[in-house]
This record gives sequence, C-alpha cells and structure tokens, in this order.
Amino acid sequence: MSVFALEGIPEVAAGDDLAGLIAIAAEIADIAVAAGVAAGTLLRHGDILAVTSKIVSKAEGRLRAAADREQAITDETVRVVATRAYPGGVTRIVENRQGLVMAAAGVDASNTPDGFVLLLPVDPDASARALCTALRARTGLRLGVVITDTAGRPWREGQTDIAIGAAGVAVLDDLRGTTDAHGRRLDVTAPAVGDEIAGAADLVKGKASGNPVAVIRGLGRLVLPLPAVDPVAAGSGVVDRGAAILLRPSENDMFRLGSAEAEALGYDRGYAAGLAAGLTAAEADLP
Amino acid sequence: MSVFALEGIPEVAAGDDLAGLIAIAAEIADIAVAAGVAAGTLLRHGDILAVTSKIVSKAEGRLRAAADREQAITDETVRVVATRAYPGGVTRIVENRQGLVMAAAGVDASNTPDGFVLLLPVDPDASARALCTALRARTGLRLGVVITDTAGRPWREGQTDIAIGAAGVAVLDDLRGTTDAHGRRLDVTAPAVGDEIAGAADLVKGKASGNPVAVIRGLGRLVLPLPAVDPVAAGSGVVDRGAAILLRPSENDMFRLGSAEAEALGYDRGYAAGLAAGLTAAEADLP
Repeated sequence: MSVFALEGIPEVAAGDDLAGLIAIAAEIADIAVAAGVAAGTLLRHGDILAVTSKIVSKAEGRLRAAADREQAITDETVRVVATRAYPGGVTRIVENRQGLVMAAAGVDASNTPDGFVLLLPVDPDASARALCTALRARTGLRLGVVITDTAGRPWREGQTDIAIGAAGVAVLDDLRGTTDAHGRRLDVTAPAVGDEIAGAADLVKGKASGNPVAVIRGLGRLVLPLPAVDPVAAGSGVVDRGAAILLRPSENDMFRLGSAEAEALGYDRGYAAGLAAGLTAAEADLP
Repeated sequence: MSVFALEGIPEVAAGDDLAGLIAIAAEIADIAVAAGVAAGTLLRHGDILAVTSKIVSKAEGRLRAAADREQAITDETVRVVATRAYPGGVTRIVENRQGLVMAAAGVDASNTPDGFVLLLPVDPDASARALCTALRARTGLRLGVVITDTAGRPWREGQTDIAIGAAGVAVLDDLRGTTDAHGRRLDVTAPAVGDEIAGAADLVKGKASGNPVAVIRGLGRLVLPLPAVDPVAAGSGVVDRGAAILLRPSENDMFRLGSAEAEALGYDRGYAAGLAAGLTAAEADLP
C-alpha cells in the first residue's frame, strides 16, 4: 500500500468544482512527478482518495460567520452526550445532524478565514458519492472516495482521522463468519477499514501542511463498483452503504452518555424514588 | 509513505527471539523481492515496524489454558468500565493491567492453539524497547517499533488497530502551540499518530492473512533516537515516552464508566439521599 498527498489543490471556495480541482491536481502531479503514466493522470484503477471534509464543506458553502459559533454548535446538535467546563467555556460532546459524536458538533474554527467557522457537509455520504461519480466519469478509473474529519475519542489521548463519508469503498471489512489461521471463526471482527484509511491519509496530509487530499493505492479489494456510473455493476447486487454504517446507533452504545451526565440522571431518578419511599415509610409508621 | 507486510515470519513460540525472526524475514524478503538493497535487508533508516501484539505475547510465553478464560479476564482487570449481557455470556469492557480500556481485558482467543488464550504483554512499551534495541543493534538502522492490538471503541462500529506499545517513535504528534495555514494556533490538536500507524499497518497485515508484521516507510520524522542504543542521542534530551502517553487517565475521562453503570451508581446515591430526605420531611411534619 502506498499513501501520498496530492499536491496542488488550491484554496477552495463555495461553488468550486472539487472533482475538477482534484483531477487537475492529479494531472499536474502527473507531469511533474510521474510522466508516462497512462491517461495523463497520476491516479490508477483501485485508488482511494481521502478528502479532508474541510474542502468539501468549503465547496458546498458551509462557511458561517463565527459570531455565532456557540449557536452554530447548538444548531448542529441532535443530542448532548457530555459537557465539561474549562476556563472560558464549555466543551460540548454531542451527536450532530450527521449522526457523528464529536466535540463542538464538528463545527470547525481552524484553517478558516478569520471570523468564520465551517460546518460539516450536510450529508457526507452524498458528497462522497457526487465526488466519486464525477471523478470516475472524468478519469475513467474505478476510484473510491473517503471524506475524513478529525475526532477525539474516549479512553485515549489525541485525535485520529475518521471516515465521515464514503463512496465506492467498503469501509467495514466484515470478517464475521470467516475463520482465522486455526480454523476458528472470527465472530466479532469487523475492521473499520474506512477509519484506518482516513488515519493513514492523515499521516501524509498533516494538519499544518495544507494538503487536503491523499491517495491510497493498493487497497483495490475494498473499492466497490458504483452503480450510478458503472452500468455493469448496476445489476450486481453490490450495495454501497457509505460511511453511515460506521455510526453506532445510540441505543446500542454502552457510552451513549458521559459518565457524569449518566450519574446525574440516575441520581435524580433515585432521589425521586427514595423521597417517595421515605415519605411512604414515615407515613406507614404513623398511628 | 509506503506500508507493506513483512512475509516469512514463522509461528512464534515462547522464548523465540522475535527481533531475530523479524530481521531474518527482512533478509529473506530482501533476496526475494528487493535484491540489491544495501546491508542485505529490506529495512531502511526511518522505517517503523508495526508488530502485532499476539506474536510478542507468544514469544513472551503469555499463553494460558483457555479453561480459565473468564478467570483470566478477571485477573487482568484493574477496573470494570461497562458490562453487557449477551446470549451465553457477558461482555466486559475493563481497564486492564496495561492501562488499556478493552473488551475482555485484551485476553485473546483467536489465532491461538485450541484450548488456549493469550494475554497481552506484561509491559508493551518495555517489549517494544527490547525489540527496537535488538533490531537497531542487528541492522545498524534507525528503526521504530509499534506494538499493535485490535480494539473496539464507543460511538462507532467495527474495530481499529491501536498502538499499545512503542519505542523509538513519537506516537503523539503534538501540534499544540503551532499554527495553521491562517496563523491561528492549533490549540487542541495532537494527532495520535501511533494509532494511525497501527491502523495503516492493519490494512496490509489483515486479520486472516497471518502476517503479523508490517513496515511503514516514509515517517522518519516520527522516529526518535533511542538513548539505549544511540550514544549520540543519550545526551540529546529526547525522551521516548512510549505508547503509554496515549492512555488517558480515567480521572480525566468523560467516559470512564459505561452510561448504564454510571446511571445505576447515581440512582443508588440519589435513592439514599432521597430516602433520608423523605424520612426527615415526614418527621418534620409530625406534631
């Protein structure tokens, strides 16, 4: 597997043709770096493009005045998971409209023009599908697209990049039912390869370098036919479920609520029950 | 960045010289795949070896009779984080002796001989240091070592590989204090590159393929001097903190306890307080 940043993507603005910018960057890179590759592009069959959500959001016009950053977070919040005060503010970890559990609902104030914040794409899987379809049509190559964002996680320090949108890529490599080298069934094993791809891409894109797109080569086994642009695939029964399948529904989540929040909720319920029991017991003692 | 599985690692048994097995596999691969590379090895300065914890555990004799799998999990548990019943058992997510929060404490029953389970290395950072020191001494190359394991996580489906041990590699790429392309400070950004490396390696090792070691090339910027084997580095002030720095202390963790467990704890406390208040209030009403 090789992973490399695609250089030459310019600053992206609302309404830009992102597929065109990526395809052109791949063509320029071709001339500069890999002259002689067929089709005039650095890209090849089976390549996966990991695209930072930030440039997708910018192309889709998701920039908003920063004056309402807190309001923007509130607007993007479907469910509050946990909050913690810090000097000068409150960290809010919430489930957002995209179904992602993230600090600040994924509302971003880094690498944006002064005075603006950036919201996530409205539907990252739809954004990935549009991008993948356009790139496949333009290059004639079977490509995959993963849209990435940076997220913290419980139990471990630091952040990793994860797949928030995907098209033409199997992001969950479901091994359940297959066997290990000893013939034992791998019953609970389903590597979240979409997140591992996003993380690998982050290692070459880098937070500060400003390269928002990386190419992952060598994982063609994960690249799916895309019925919309692949007539042969239309009847194949392959269903591209996007990155949404990586979202665990909150009702199945053992960590759907922060520990302090869950304890406070329990305390309130317990207090009400205890109070009622205390009053009843005291009354029962009355003559 | 390129990432490839190192082929030719045999089944590992207790007492095996893991550094030797890896070095020999790299030499064999050299002959078969990349004849002509200097020093008779496929490895190069700045390479990071991602080693599946399973073979480290096997070399360290951490195999245990499976009859006490549940007891083994209990023995490895420092703190129960969450439990959930399923038909035929209980999933236990716990903090283990290594400080990792993992299902079943990281006790593994896949890819082990029938009737046995495998415990994690006692001290994965120490294992990584020993391996890195031996590999650097043997090859004369500045290498890094990451010991990986597979872990589930809250909020998202599937598992990813994470770094449970490391030596000679900066696993947390702390950008706090640096600035983005707009000159704004990246205050909370610290990519957990160790985990991203482990995930990238998993993409080429594969769960079922039986290749337990991958080489990551192109991240030499993250490879640290190792004072133990690098006299020049001994006075450099570089401190290799291993993968332990990726462990978030539970007191700082907003998800230190499962939602149901935290709610039950709160309920009990609330009930006791409510009961006392109810009895007191009833008494106060008495003439």
